[in-house]
Order: sequence, then structure tokens, then C-alpha cells
Amino acid sequence: MSKPTTAIGIDFGGTSIKSAVVREGQIIARGEPIDPQAFAGSDALIEAMAALIAKLRVAHPEIAGVGIGLPGFVDSENGIVHSLTNVAGWDEVPLCQILHEKTGLTVTIENDANAMAYGEFKYGAAKGGRHVICITLGTGVGGALILNHKLYRGAQLGAGEVGHMSIDLNGRPGPYGNNGGLEEYVGNQQIAERAVELYRAAGLTKTMEDCTPKALQQAALTGDAVAVGLWNQLGIELGTALASVVWLINPDTIVIGGGVALAGDVLFQPIIREIKSRTLALFHEQLRVIPATLGNDAGIIGNAALALEAAE
Amino acid sequence: MSKPTTAIGIDFGGTSIKSAVVREGQIIARGEPIDPQAFAGSDALIEAMAALIAKLRVAHPEIAGVGIGLPGFVDSENGIVHSLTNVAGWDEVPLCQILHEKTGLTVTIENDANAMAYGEFKYGAAKGGRHVICITLGTGVGGALILNHKLYRGAQLGAGEVGHMSIDLNGRPGPYGNNGGLEEYVGNQQIAERAVELYRAAGLTKTMEDCTPKALQQAALTGDAVAVGLWNQLGIELGTALASVVWLINPDTIVIGGGVALAGDVLFQPIIREIKSRTLALFHEQLRVIPATLGNDAGIIGNAALALEAAE
Repeated sequence: MSKPTTAIGIDFGGTSIKSAVVREGQIIARGEPIDPQAFAGSDALIEAMAALIAKLRVAHPEIAGVGIGLPGFVDSENGIVHSLTNVAGWDEVPLCQILHEKTGLTVTIENDANAMAYGEFKYGAAKGGRHVICITLGTGVGGALILNHKLYRGAQLGAGEVGHMSIDLNGRPGPYGNNGGLEEYVGNQQIAERAVELYRAAGLTKTMEDCTPKALQQAALTGDAVAVGLWNQLGIELGTALASVVWLINPDTIVIGGGVALAGDVLFQPIIREIKSRTLALFHEQLRVIPATLGNDAGIIGNAALALEAAE
Repeated sequence: MSKPTTAIGIDFGGTSIKSAVVREGQIIARGEPIDPQAFAGSDALIEAMAALIAKLRVAHPEIAGVGIGLPGFVDSENGIVHSLTNVAGWDEVPLCQILHEKTGLTVTIENDANAMAYGEFKYGAAKGGRHVICITLGTGVGGALILNHKLYRGAQLGAGEVGHMSIDLNGRPGPYGNNGGLEEYVGNQQIAERAVELYRAAGLTKTMEDCTPKALQQAALTGDAVAVGLWNQLGIELGTALASVVWLINPDTIVIGGGVALAGDVLFQPIIREIKSRTLALFHEQLRVIPATLGNDAGIIGNAALALEAAE
């Protein structure tokens, strides 16, 4: 039998379940999106996922496996969904086993942040890397580690929480009494609040809605001193946390994705400057700090890759 | 052929090279110490090491390999010593190949911090762990990671530098422009300086020599408020850095060794309290934070274990 090349990747989001047939990192057909909130519980929703898989297999009988990324607490080693964030009725569901029985296919599950990171590692920005850190900048700061070419999950499968690393032991209050957690400085909401405050101090009135990452990027590109200053400060804060990650993990690649990362150079340049200024040359001379490239498809592509590897 | 059980572990220190025959984690015979400073360069010193190995093999012909831990920059994958700290004449020495040719044995080399950590993992405090962080508190703060039962070394074999993680982005100045690096707070020298200063503020005159970790531990045990306060503060600082490690790596075991760690409960209790107060229960409920148990033999035992695994 020849080596399988094609799998289904499923990105299980809180408001939409997206899917596609993926061959060697390329999406070749997409499934109909499913709204998870339209189903009363896991049984009916799993039935809908099985129907979706069956439909995709009609045109693609060569499909060798299904990989599913989920937003929540997932035991990828035993195939069990412990609980999901914002989707009710998913407590201790042996999803891999149920879907395998319904489809006969190899089924893998993974935490969504890990799946996205794996997609970037296999087919996106971090291709060719061996020790890779991925962070996602949005409402919060998510993260995932790929070490020695494999997802590293940790003792309770919780590894990668860069957003909770403290950059100031007496800093901004955060959850769990964890003062100075990175997320409290660079989350979407925090960035907007800080911008409004900085503009006010400069005698300008702006609303939170005026201060999206996109608007602040445009402002910085036109030389707006408040925006430039804020991006520099965000770069220092992110760069401090990432420098600590670099000292601890000595990665070859850091991938930064998510909405805030779309700001590009106005954010990446200060981050890279800060990492370099805080680490020994040995640790940063060959380090790549680069934007994610797969966008919203990273999860689908990563899950398909994980399923293929399990099917081999 | 039965599985080998016995190897020589060598702990190559800047002032003394210690060695022993080790069987399943137990030292069964010790070699004569060698003073590395008594040799003009690597050739003569390697000759002395070969003679030492030959002597130990007379009584123990079953020896299957030799593992050497060195203080410096070491390529354990290719068996090359790039350079040593405080020992001249060791630039780009293919030590494993040379000693293998002289002895016929499997020879491994490792960075000394990694070798000590591996000893604690295989036969000491961290036995039974899967994802282990080891830190050593002395003049500096060293560290090493064992992930999925294996030493994790990183892209340039530099991983584990917990001592350079920043706990305050605007904190104490340190090397590489890295403000707030943990080592600047909890190194031996810094602890003594801070104690002298705190006693002075309390109206008491103490010298640096009065303020060794041992003396400060005794003072804390007799209720000395300055000493108790300082150990609590050191625990908060170490606990903040370790909480960041816990969020990122999600280990099952943290081992703390080195002279400062001999302070015991007066240090460990505040460290554990701080880690718990800064992390989600999932991350700390099953986490062990424990003192190293192999003391000065950790390196010898770890190197012997690494040599045995390579010989298998």
C-alpha cells in the first residue's frame, strides 16, 4: 500500500466548524460549515460531523484519516474531549473512538492552538524548523511548542501558555494572582485601553473602537507618535517574555500569528530588537522571528497533518 | 550478550576531575581525582583520563562506556568540546572519538548542568518524572530540562537558562542588557549583599561573610525577622520565574539543587506558595517541587547513565 497523502482537517470553533480535504498541506475541497450551537449535545453534533465526512469521501475516497482541533481541554493521547470552551454538552466525550466506529477512519483530536502551530510547522512559516514556539495574539495570548519536530504538550497537556508568563512580578494584576502576566499588557482589549489613555494624555479623544490593531498600525505608518510609542512598548513587553522563552527553550523559530500580528513591521521590529538586546548572540543569531502564513487555515491544515501521521 | 549495567561517570570540574564506576545508579568504586590545571593542554589531559579509565577497568572489566560532563560549550550530539570555562587549551576537541580510539569504549559527553539533571532524573529526586526542570542555585542559577524522559538541549544546545529569565522588565540590570534576570536577585553574592543591606536598614551591622546561605538559614530558623523576610522575598522571586516555566512547560517535577537550596523549608515553602498562587490548579496540583538528593555525585551518576544508554 502506498503512503497516505490525504486527510480531512476539521477546525472546531465555538461558532463554526470548518473542514476541508487536505493533500500535502494544500486544501483541495472544503466542507459545508456546521454551526455547533444549532445542536443540543455532542451526540447529534458528532452525527453531523460523520455525515460531513461521508460526503467529503464521495469525491475523495483516498482520505486516510480525520484530524479535529477543538477549543478546550482535550486529551489527544487518549482521544477524549474533557470539556469545551463556549460549547455545552461536551464532557468526557471519547470523540476519536466514536467517530472511528462511524467512519472506519483514523481520527485524531488536538487542542486548537497546538493544531494551528503544527500547521505552521509542517506547511507554513515554521517549515524546516526543529524547535518552534508559536504564539497567537488576539483577545488573549495563546501558544504552543514543537520540540524536536513534535508537538510538546506537557504533564497535563497544558504547555505553551506564554500569555501567562509574568514580565513583572509586581505588575498588572491578572487571573490566578499572577501579577504581570503578558496577556494583561498585550491582549486586544488592553491594547485599545492603553491607546485611548495615551491619546488622552496627549490631549486627543479616541474611543476603544478607534483603537483597533489595524487602526493603530495605520496610525504608526503615518508617523503618529502615540501609536509608534505604543507599538514600541508592546514590542518591549512581548520581547521580554519571548527572550525568557529563548533562554529557557533555545528555539530556532518563533512564529507570531493572530489579529494583532497583522500589524507587521511596526510590531515585529521592536520585538526582534528586544529579544536581541536581552540574549546572548548564540541564542539569537540564527533565530527566526516571523509572522504566521497560513491564516485561518492553519488549524485545518495542522489537524489534517496530525491525522495523516497517525494513519501512517 | 546481556544488557550492560556498569559505566564510568566523570565529572570534569575546573579544579578537579572526579570519576567513579557506577552500576545502576550506585557508585561502586571511585577513581583518583585529576587536577586539570596541572596539564598544559588537552592532549596530555586526555592521556591521563585514558590511564584513569584503564585503571578502573582492571577491577571492573564489565564497564561498557564512559560518560563525561564538562563545564562549557559542548556538542553532545557530535562528541565535540567547543570550549571550556576556566580550563585552557580545549578548543574544538573531538573528545569522544579520541577517547574511544584509546579505550575501545562508547564515550559520551554532556554539559555539566545537563548531566547533573539527568542523574537526578534517573536515580535521584526526579525519579519517575516525565517532564522535569532542574535548577541549581549557587553563584549563578543553572538549569536543565528533561522532556518526555529525554534531555532537551535546544537549537544551539543552550536550553535551560532559567537564571536569565526576566522577572521584571525594568528590574535589576544584568548581562546582555537583560534587566530583571532571576540570577541578579538570587545568586549567592546577591543574596549576601541584600542581607547586609537589610540588616543595615534594621540597624544591624553584618558583613558579607556573615550572610552565607547557611547562616541566613540558621537565622531564619531562630526567628530572625530580616532573614525570614529575605527568604520569603527570594521565594517570591524564584517562584515567579518558576511559575512562568510551569505555564510554558507544564512539568510534573521541579528539582532545586545547589548550595542555596540547602536552606530547605525556609526557601522551599515560599517558592511553592508563590508557584501555587500564580498558576491554575491543573498546572500545580500534581506538580512536585523538591530538593535534589544526589549532591556532588549527581554529575558522575548522570554521566554514567548517559554512557550506558549510548552503549546499549
